[in-house]
Amino acid sequence: MAKKVGVAILGLGVVGGGTYKTLTEHKDFYIRTQNVEISVETVLVRRKETAFDLGIEEDRISQNIVEVVANPAVDIVIETIGGCGVAKEYVLAALAHGKTVVTANKELISKYSHELEKEAKRNGCGLYFEASCVGGVPIIRTLLDGVQGNHVTEMMGIINGTTNFILTKMAQDGADYEETLKEAQRLGYAEADPTNDVEAFDALYKLSILSSIAFHTKVPHNKVFREGISSIQKEDIAYGKDLGYTLKLLAIGKNTPEGLEARGHPTIIKKNHPLASVNDAYNAVFLKGDAVGDVMLYGKGAGALPTASAVVSDVIYAATHSDVKYSTFKNTATADANVKFVSDFKSAYYIRLEVEDRAGVLAKISGIFAKYGVSIIEMVQKSKEEANNGKIPLIFITHQTTENSVKKSVAKINELDFAKVKTTIRVEA
Amino acid sequence: MAKKVGVAILGLGVVGGGTYKTLTEHKDFYIRTQNVEISVETVLVRRKETAFDLGIEEDRISQNIVEVVANPAVDIVIETIGGCGVAKEYVLAALAHGKTVVTANKELISKYSHELEKEAKRNGCGLYFEASCVGGVPIIRTLLDGVQGNHVTEMMGIINGTTNFILTKMAQDGADYEETLKEAQRLGYAEADPTNDVEAFDALYKLSILSSIAFHTKVPHNKVFREGISSIQKEDIAYGKDLGYTLKLLAIGKNTPEGLEARGHPTIIKKNHPLASVNDAYNAVFLKGDAVGDVMLYGKGAGALPTASAVVSDVIYAATHSDVKYSTFKNTATADANVKFVSDFKSAYYIRLEVEDRAGVLAKISGIFAKYGVSIIEMVQKSKEEANNGKIPLIFITHQTTENSVKKSVAKINELDFAKVKTTIRVEA
Repeated sequence: MAKKVGVAILGLGVVGGGTYKTLTEHKDFYIRTQNVEISVETVLVRRKETAFDLGIEEDRISQNIVEVVANPAVDIVIETIGGCGVAKEYVLAALAHGKTVVTANKELISKYSHELEKEAKRNGCGLYFEASCVGGVPIIRTLLDGVQGNHVTEMMGIINGTTNFILTKMAQDGADYEETLKEAQRLGYAEADPTNDVEAFDALYKLSILSSIAFHTKVPHNKVFREGISSIQKEDIAYGKDLGYTLKLLAIGKNTPEGLEARGHPTIIKKNHPLASVNDAYNAVFLKGDAVGDVMLYGKGAGALPTASAVVSDVIYAATHSDVKYSTFKNTATADANVKFVSDFKSAYYIRLEVEDRAGVLAKISGIFAKYGVSIIEMVQKSKEEANNGKIPLIFITHQTTENSVKKSVAKINELDFAKVKTTIRVEA
Repeated sequence: MAKKVGVAILGLGVVGGGTYKTLTEHKDFYIRTQNVEISVETVLVRRKETAFDLGIEEDRISQNIVEVVANPAVDIVIETIGGCGVAKEYVLAALAHGKTVVTANKELISKYSHELEKEAKRNGCGLYFEASCVGGVPIIRTLLDGVQGNHVTEMMGIINGTTNFILTKMAQDGADYEETLKEAQRLGYAEADPTNDVEAFDALYKLSILSSIAFHTKVPHNKVFREGISSIQKEDIAYGKDLGYTLKLLAIGKNTPEGLEARGHPTIIKKNHPLASVNDAYNAVFLKGDAVGDVMLYGKGAGALPTASAVVSDVIYAATHSDVKYSTFKNTATADANVKFVSDFKSAYYIRLEVEDRAGVLAKISGIFAKYGVSIIEMVQKSKEEANNGKIPLIFITHQTTENSVKKSVAKINELDFAKVKTTIRVEA
């Protein structure tokens, strides 16, 4: 006999709708393969028409959260509303009524995991959020149940599909940022207001969640350094390519002897790095564990069905595993007092200058880098044909150095009348 | 209070030794992060010196399985002996005594899962085998707990490190198979008798396990088509490269309307396929799910610590999850009666011929392919400079066709006095 599980879906947008379809179309499959019979008992929507469009009958549609959480047929509440307004209120109400919650809400988990976990624990119910990070890629399950025997020392991810689509297109077509963003919007890969994606807020929340789990300590979102892609210039993608590098928006978490680093920013990586060939709207997370070595998970980071796959995975997991752990975020809103966060982190850099074509320029600039301890791996001076208003591009790749050293060098170089720094981009090995 | 868990390790070879080190060096880490205190209560070895070398004291060394399985301090028995001799006997003895078993033994799980699962079920204990397939890559956990909401329609994997190392080297250095095998043996990537790896027996057992889980039905190892890499010629790697393809030993499982396909053989894939850039001893499994779309997991497929990571993951999972499912292989030794296996499966093909340089050759050969319904996507005739004893290489890439059609075409072509088929290799999109 299959175990009966009743679920409620809050919100029937892209993810909620995909979840409804996945659960109903696979109902017999889950009975046969998972021994669970999952019934969508009720859906909570603002507009009933949204539910009618999916073929949901009137008596399964609710517009009242009190009714939904009081429904004894509902065991698991799936939240796909998003944001921290009613979504938070509804999730807390569900937990207070002893319902296990499955959510796709990265902002909610990143900002309020402590409150939610406390409420879940108090009521003995589960809180699952695989769908909050990297859509269909089972990265949270892997961190919790797959590589949990390792000290995870490093995590690098392409965890936002919109920006990866834009950067991939810019690289393939040699196109500008603005032009490519418009194309992404036209194709539905970017929203009308793209800020959340292109300025890396989306990546920030996800990295906060993933690094909290990977490093076994709360990494609050305000401890994550954030820099978006809106000022990326096509020249830097092209010059990077010539040097054997690819430009990506990477979310990076490192657990170093000096402390934790969590940062999301445009990054140049070697083109033979496994992340370099993750293109278009695909996502991937690359991990280093002290036993397992390098591991990478790759897949679709967003979309109705990939994200539904993660939601449904959590529903089945909740239905088939009775042990619930509450230590994921240690129930704290802030980082542990003994955890140090590194802000002036070390990185290699790609630095592009434009200089006048005259004797002594290189010596002067090299001298400034040397003065601030910035040592150079590679330098390329472009030909006069690539000059811009008579200024010649000069590109440096540095060894690992601190951000402060780079900032000071850049300020000093910009005081010269024959050289200007146009770009600095971090480089990862 | 951390939960106390006692383990026994059977065998202290590469994986057993790595497991011992990982468990002991991470003991405090697991107490802190997993709330479990894992103690290695006893190790079973033939030669006590092996245990002494790892710093294990005399009173924790056993040479008697009866003693080990009767030890009340042992909750979980880790089997890292390998093969189906004493390993099978010992695992059954452990299960009979109510001990949960964690094993790295692909041959044992592939051949005897039905016996082992039955015994585990009878005694209410767990049977875990993440380490049996693809070392550190948590592919079994992902199939069971990550993409379980999907109909998995396809699985393609590079699941043997030895052969991937050899094929990567052959491609990079333009070297012969025999020469590269010797180098792999010298570097420790291939065994003195490499048959198990290069003839794809290793991949066969792993594919049997993985496709059984992915497709929710037992896929016995003798239903898996197997072809090794020992007859791969460097010319084909080079010509494939020119056409934008990479040669890999792929393990392929497909769940098609016509039936199940399970096969491991040299395969040519497009160089932009995520599997094409999986090089050296790295492994990867690429999945297609009906909701999640494409997912790939990448990592080290073998080695002491990566495999130990998988063993330890299972130990922690067993210690922290009380629900055990026994339906993985449906307790059967053979496939379900209603499951059809496809033997004359469809595939695209790379076909290399050597032909005499005279008029009408191409027309004649094309005619033969057409006669047997083999349709051609791409044809390349090499220049006279690449001729071999006056014979010119001619390469065809076909559309999907049956193996029988290819065999018949090849036989017919080989009857001609001016053309010989040198190679046929399957192609996957």
